[in-house]
Amino acid sequence: MLENKDNSRTDISQLGEFGLIDHLTKQFSIQHKSTIKGIGDDAAVITLDEPIVVTTDLLVEGVHFDLSYMPLKHLGYKAVIVNLSDVYAMNATPSQITVSIAASNRFPVEALEELYAGIATAAKIYGIDVVGGDTTSSTSGLLISITAIGHAKKEDIVYRDGAGDSDLLVVSGDLGAAYLGLQILEREKQVFKVNPNSQPDLDAYTYLIERQLKPEARKDIVKLLADLEVLPTSMIDISDGLSSEILHLCKNSKVGCNLYEDKIPLDPQVISTSEEFKMDSTTIALSGGEDYELLFTVKQEDFPKIKGNPNLSIIGHMTHEKEGVHLITRANTKIPIVARGWNSLQEE
Amino acid sequence: MLENKDNSRTDISQLGEFGLIDHLTKQFSIQHKSTIKGIGDDAAVITLDEPIVVTTDLLVEGVHFDLSYMPLKHLGYKAVIVNLSDVYAMNATPSQITVSIAASNRFPVEALEELYAGIATAAKIYGIDVVGGDTTSSTSGLLISITAIGHAKKEDIVYRDGAGDSDLLVVSGDLGAAYLGLQILEREKQVFKVNPNSQPDLDAYTYLIERQLKPEARKDIVKLLADLEVLPTSMIDISDGLSSEILHLCKNSKVGCNLYEDKIPLDPQVISTSEEFKMDSTTIALSGGEDYELLFTVKQEDFPKIKGNPNLSIIGHMTHEKEGVHLITRANTKIPIVARGWNSLQEE
Repeated sequence: MLENKDNSRTDISQLGEFGLIDHLTKQFSIQHKSTIKGIGDDAAVITLDEPIVVTTDLLVEGVHFDLSYMPLKHLGYKAVIVNLSDVYAMNATPSQITVSIAASNRFPVEALEELYAGIATAAKIYGIDVVGGDTTSSTSGLLISITAIGHAKKEDIVYRDGAGDSDLLVVSGDLGAAYLGLQILEREKQVFKVNPNSQPDLDAYTYLIERQLKPEARKDIVKLLADLEVLPTSMIDISDGLSSEILHLCKNSKVGCNLYEDKIPLDPQVISTSEEFKMDSTTIALSGGEDYELLFTVKQEDFPKIKGNPNLSIIGHMTHEKEGVHLITRANTKIPIVARGWNSLQEE
Repeated sequence: MLENKDNSRTDISQLGEFGLIDHLTKQFSIQHKSTIKGIGDDAAVITLDEPIVVTTDLLVEGVHFDLSYMPLKHLGYKAVIVNLSDVYAMNATPSQITVSIAASNRFPVEALEELYAGIATAAKIYGIDVVGGDTTSSTSGLLISITAIGHAKKEDIVYRDGAGDSDLLVVSGDLGAAYLGLQILEREKQVFKVNPNSQPDLDAYTYLIERQLKPEARKDIVKLLADLEVLPTSMIDISDGLSSEILHLCKNSKVGCNLYEDKIPLDPQVISTSEEFKMDSTTIALSGGEDYELLFTVKQEDFPKIKGNPNLSIIGHMTHEKEGVHLITRANTKIPIVARGWNSLQEE
């Protein structure tokens, strides 16, 4: 009667809090010289010779993710990426994270192992140390809180408030795919509810789904800009949608902006799937969110350094504040941009 | 129809995510020169000339707190204290925190204002800046995740692993009160369920209840030790109970310990209330938890500096590892100490 017959499921209470933390964190080794002490004391100890940047994000089951199509390993990976993206958006280099997790008893130890495996994979790929955290039970659902620490030379840190009124507006990668990936997964979930034996053919949507389930943070863009000797005048990462982020830059920098619809970078899968869903691809790029691309402004004199770079698209230019923030459509009409980004507090 | 007739309750979705964060964080001003950028960018920017310490804690409704007797303002205060206590346990000075909150729609904006008021009070009293955070909805309950950053000279940082086998074991303040405060509050909750009109007389328990609802972190002890020119050889804060923390120090420092029952500091209210509850006060001190006192070891040569100090009690001494970890009772029997600290993962 005392034996656990199901070897594939270990209840988290069997290990106890310290046992569980030890079990889950033993895979994390310290890579950075700057990490003096990682997990295992009242606090981690870090020595960085430069200013540090600190950012934190909270992901809540049922609000930010749906485990019916988000594998736990991907979730762990994505939870790290979301934070690293904020560090890169300061033009800084992430070096340490702390990870706190609350999980209800519906999650066995094996599920948390999957989650931590995803966290460990992201940490390894991006070269960061997991230096602390907390693991506790919750009364319902799963919640992940990550804090990332990075560093940069003081003169290299890029804020949201530095854009000048004739600067160029530049974005990395392409936009809208993560949102459409979510729509595809939601659609398949509904199909599965009706017919659990259906075998979805998702070949036409692989890029979209990958962008939703396994996003990357643009470490490469921070390096590229350094190599090109371009210091952006302002920068933000695109987590809530292009329109919302442009408004943040404009508000903080006290400038206006003209964004050109025909310059917004879209993947072919975004264009074809938008048509399939009878949605406007520009609206998706403007409001979709979760793309984790970098949006930044550069001085006009830096134009020769970035033009033609396949990783970067010049999508507009800043203007005097009183000119406002507008989208210039393909039909050459001027529409005010309003924030319609994703809002976790909005009621369904 | 569009008006909110109940002016005392503003739904959090009315403000939106950015509106809510702006609303709740506008009361936080920057006090520290070291905070270059606080709330309002992708990440905070901090310049500290010393090594930094980082710690994080997660508090979950129904696991770590019960809002039926924990006022939200006190909860906000306590959530900060729990983290600062970990920073002091490194013999470091906290300077910044980030605060992330997930709240279900049962919490109106006014409730979150109360919570943030408690956070702001703790920040002001302990001289720290709130530099970032995240506010989101949850599907059920309230959750608070705080990360604290502090700093110290490298040579002043005290770890868990430095205790020598003849060092003295010292604790600040007194133990067991927070646990008994919780028992009192639980008892009153049950009484209230049976008779909502009962007026509890809690005068005999004021210290216990205050220790549970509004604990403090021992900033003063870190200062006292510096003033006395005593650098502990190891240190930890008492969050899970004395026995659990002694075992952490012994395991990390590879030493044993003799703890003397008659030396454990107890408040008179702890003694009288233990008797009332027919519980052993030593057991409560050993296993109660949430006292947030500092437990540390000092070299024997530092004895003259600390003896007789009303804030400090010498409760035992470390031994060779092979001698094990024991409680020496008032009857002079030797009982092995095992961890029976509070465990958030334990099933009820």
